[in-house]
Amino acid sequence: MAVPHLTTALTGPLLDLEKRLLDAMPGIEAWFRAQWSDHTPPFYGSVDLRNAGYKLAPVDMNLFPAGFNNLNPVFRPLAIQAAQVTIDHLCPGAANLLIIPENHTRNLYYLQNVATLRDTLRLSGLKVRVGSLLPDITAPTTIDLPDGNSLTLEPLVRRGRRLGLADFDPCVILLNNDLSAGLPEVLRGIDQAIMPPAEAGWHTRRKSQHFHLYDQVAVEFADLIGIDPWVINPFWGVCKGVDFQARTGEECLAETVREVLERTRVKYREMGISQTPFVMVKADAGTYGMGVMSVKDPSEVVGLNRKQRNKMAVVKEGLEVTDVLVQEGVPTFETVNAAVAEPVVYMLDRFVIGGFYRVHTGRGDDENLNAPGMHFVPLAFENGCTEPDAAARPDAPPNRFYAYGVISRLALLAASHEIEALTTPAGLLDALAAKPAEQPEPV
Amino acid sequence: MAVPHLTTALTGPLLDLEKRLLDAMPGIEAWFRAQWSDHTPPFYGSVDLRNAGYKLAPVDMNLFPAGFNNLNPVFRPLAIQAAQVTIDHLCPGAANLLIIPENHTRNLYYLQNVATLRDTLRLSGLKVRVGSLLPDITAPTTIDLPDGNSLTLEPLVRRGRRLGLADFDPCVILLNNDLSAGLPEVLRGIDQAIMPPAEAGWHTRRKSQHFHLYDQVAVEFADLIGIDPWVINPFWGVCKGVDFQARTGEECLAETVREVLERTRVKYREMGISQTPFVMVKADAGTYGMGVMSVKDPSEVVGLNRKQRNKMAVVKEGLEVTDVLVQEGVPTFETVNAAVAEPVVYMLDRFVIGGFYRVHTGRGDDENLNAPGMHFVPLAFENGCTEPDAAARPDAPPNRFYAYGVISRLALLAASHEIEALTTPAGLLDALAAKPAEQPEPV
Repeated sequence: MAVPHLTTALTGPLLDLEKRLLDAMPGIEAWFRAQWSDHTPPFYGSVDLRNAGYKLAPVDMNLFPAGFNNLNPVFRPLAIQAAQVTIDHLCPGAANLLIIPENHTRNLYYLQNVATLRDTLRLSGLKVRVGSLLPDITAPTTIDLPDGNSLTLEPLVRRGRRLGLADFDPCVILLNNDLSAGLPEVLRGIDQAIMPPAEAGWHTRRKSQHFHLYDQVAVEFADLIGIDPWVINPFWGVCKGVDFQARTGEECLAETVREVLERTRVKYREMGISQTPFVMVKADAGTYGMGVMSVKDPSEVVGLNRKQRNKMAVVKEGLEVTDVLVQEGVPTFETVNAAVAEPVVYMLDRFVIGGFYRVHTGRGDDENLNAPGMHFVPLAFENGCTEPDAAARPDAPPNRFYAYGVISRLALLAASHEIEALTTPAGLLDALAAKPAEQPEPV
Repeated sequence: MAVPHLTTALTGPLLDLEKRLLDAMPGIEAWFRAQWSDHTPPFYGSVDLRNAGYKLAPVDMNLFPAGFNNLNPVFRPLAIQAAQVTIDHLCPGAANLLIIPENHTRNLYYLQNVATLRDTLRLSGLKVRVGSLLPDITAPTTIDLPDGNSLTLEPLVRRGRRLGLADFDPCVILLNNDLSAGLPEVLRGIDQAIMPPAEAGWHTRRKSQHFHLYDQVAVEFADLIGIDPWVINPFWGVCKGVDFQARTGEECLAETVREVLERTRVKYREMGISQTPFVMVKADAGTYGMGVMSVKDPSEVVGLNRKQRNKMAVVKEGLEVTDVLVQEGVPTFETVNAAVAEPVVYMLDRFVIGGFYRVHTGRGDDENLNAPGMHFVPLAFENGCTEPDAAARPDAPPNRFYAYGVISRLALLAASHEIEALTTPAGLLDALAAKPAEQPEPV
C-alpha cells in the first residue's frame, strides 16, 4: 500500500486565500462543526474545483459521484471510517445496503467505481449488494473488471413498499444513479431511506438552485475569514425555457452571457487581472460534461449550427435541456507536465476522503475538462486534505489540499441546504426559480 | 508522506480466529455499532496485545496512552478524522483543548508523543495548548525535540472552578497523565469536562476490574462468533493487601499463581499446546512496565530477594503496590528479524487509528516487553486495521491487523464499562473488589 510518487501541479503564485485559510483554521473548523450540527451532510458528494491562482471556486457539485476508483488507495481507511460514522446515523442496527448504479454495463471504468464504493462500504461493516435498474438484468450477472476486481449486478425485487433483491432486504438504498431519466416506478413509494434522496436526482435538481444557495454560504464564509466572496464563488446567471432545437431563448442566453462577462470584466479590472473573461454555458439540470460550451462573446450563443445545437440540447438518457446556466469561467491555473489539471474532491458524510486531478493534455485552460468523449488521466492526490502545515509555504501541497477541502466542504454545505429544500414542496418550487444573489461589494 | 517499507512479523500458523473474524465481519461491526450506541467510548486508549498463534488477547489497556509519535504518519488523517467525531460530542461550539501531560521534562520521546497528540488535535480543528502540573513550570517553557518539533509547557492557572492557562480557557481538559500520584488539588472540583475522567487514573483504577469487565465482553463476543472465549482472554486472579516489603500476602500470591498456572495447564492439555505455562505478576494499579514479573512456578513469588521486592513494591511516583494481578502469560508468537514483537493498537473515540510493534531483541517470548529501562524499537504498522481482504489468506497482513483491531476494540469496550463504573460510587467500590468471572466451558 505504498503511496505512488506523483508529480502534481503545485507551483505558481502564492495564493493569499491559502494563507487566510491556514491562519483561520481552528475558527473554520468550529464554524463547520456548528453548520453540521444544524444541517445533515449528503451521504456523499464530489466537487469540481477550478484554481485560477487569484480564485479557487467550485464549478460543479455531484451528489451521485463516480470515480471512487480514482482515489489514492492509501486514503481508503479514511473513507471506511467516514462511512462508519454515516452508518451510525442511518441504520445503527441493520447492516444491509443496496447500491443502485447507473445503467452502464460496458463502461468498465464506471463499474470499477461501483466496485470500489461497494468494497469501501463493506469494509465499514455493511453487507452491500448492487441492484440494477436495467430490465436486461434478470439474473445475477458478474462482470470482470480491468483491475482484477469483479462486480455482480442483481435484479431488483419489489415486495410491497420494500425494495431489495431476491434474498436481500436492505435498510438503505444508496443511489449512484443521478436519475437523469426521471424517478423509476420501482423507486416510488418505498419504505426504506433512499440516499441521497430521490429528489436530488437531475429530474428535479437544478444547478442554479445549488449556486443560489452556495452564494449565501460563500458570503457567510467570506465574512468569517475576511475575504471578498468572489474569490471563492463564480458569477452566474440562468435562462429558463430555452429550446436549442427550436432556437427559442437565444436572446435571454446572449443577454445573460453578456451580463456575466461584464461583471467578470469589471471584477478583473478592479483586481488587476489581465485574463480575457469567458463563461461556461451548461445545462441547468443534468450531468456535467454534456451540454457544455466555453464562450467569450455573447454572439457565440446566437445562431448555433446544427452540431452545436445537438450537443447542447440533450444531456443524458434523453433528458432535454430547457434551463441553461451561464457561469463565470475560472481558468485552470494548475498543470501537470504542461497538461491542464482540474482538482476533484470527494466527501463522505462531512469528511473529505480524498481527490484526484483530471489531467487532459489536449485542452486549453479555459475549456471544460469533463466533456463527452474526453480521455482524462486521473492523478490521485498525493496528500490528504486534512493536514495543513503552518510551517510550510501557503501553497505547499498539504496546505493547497487543505484549501481544496475547505472550499469543497462549502459546496457540500450548500448541497445540504439544497437537499433540505428539495425534500419540501416549497423548496422544490424554489429550485425551479433560483436566481443569483447580489454579491456584496468586496471588503 | 510515503509509507516506509517495513518488514513485519507476519509469518506463522494460520489462525483459525482470524478466519472466524473475517467471515463474521459485518456481524461484528453491527455488534460494535450497537455497543457504542449504549456505551460512550473513552476519549482514547491503547491496548497491548499478545499473539500466541493459538490465542490473541489483550494483556493491558492504557487509558492515557503515550507513543502517538510511534504511529505511522501515513495514518494520521484517520486520527484527525476520529478526533473530529469526538469533538462533535465533546465541545461542538468551543474549540479550546488543554492537554495535561506526565511530569516529564527530560523524556524527550514522551514529549514527542505529546507534541504529536497536540498536532493531531490541532489538525482536527481545535486550539490546543499544554499545561503542566510541574511546580517548576512557572512560565511558558519551550522544549526542542529530537524530531525537529517543539513543545511548549505552560503553567496551569486556576480561576474559581475553571482550569486553564493565563490566556486560555479550555472547554475540555485532556489527561495524558495517568494520575499515579493521585488526583492533584488543581484538578479537583473544576467545571470543565476532564477526559478520560480523573477516576480512570491509577489512583483509583484497578486492572482486575478491567479484566473482570473484559471477561464479560469476551464471553458475549465469543458467543457471537462461536469461539471459546479463552482464545481472546487470558485467565487471571488477584491478591489484595500484598506488602512486598513486609512480606505479607506471599501465600495468597503463591496460591493465585498456582491456580492460574493450573487452569492454563489444563487448557493447554485440552488444546494440545505443548508450551510451558507461565504467568505475569503485576501491580493491579499503576502503569504497566513497572512492577512486573514473569513466573513459571509458585515458589518464585515466595521469599523474593531485596532487589526483586524493591522492583515489585512501587510502580511510579511513589504509588505503592498493595494489590497484585496474576495473569496467564500469553507467549509472543510474532518476531521481527528474530526479535520478539508485541503489537500495540491505538484508538481514538471508537476508531482504530493505527498501531506499532514493540520490538525487543534482548528478551524471550515469555517476558514483559515494556519493562523499565528497556529499549524497544517501535515498528509502525504498515497497514491500517480496517481493510481486511477476504480474498487473501486469513493471516495476510491486512487480515491480521483487522483481527488486532477487533480484539483491541473489545478491550476498549470493557474500558468504557469500567469508566461507567468508576464514575459512580458503587462502581468505585466494585473496582476495588473485582474477581475473575467463571469462564464457561468451550463450545
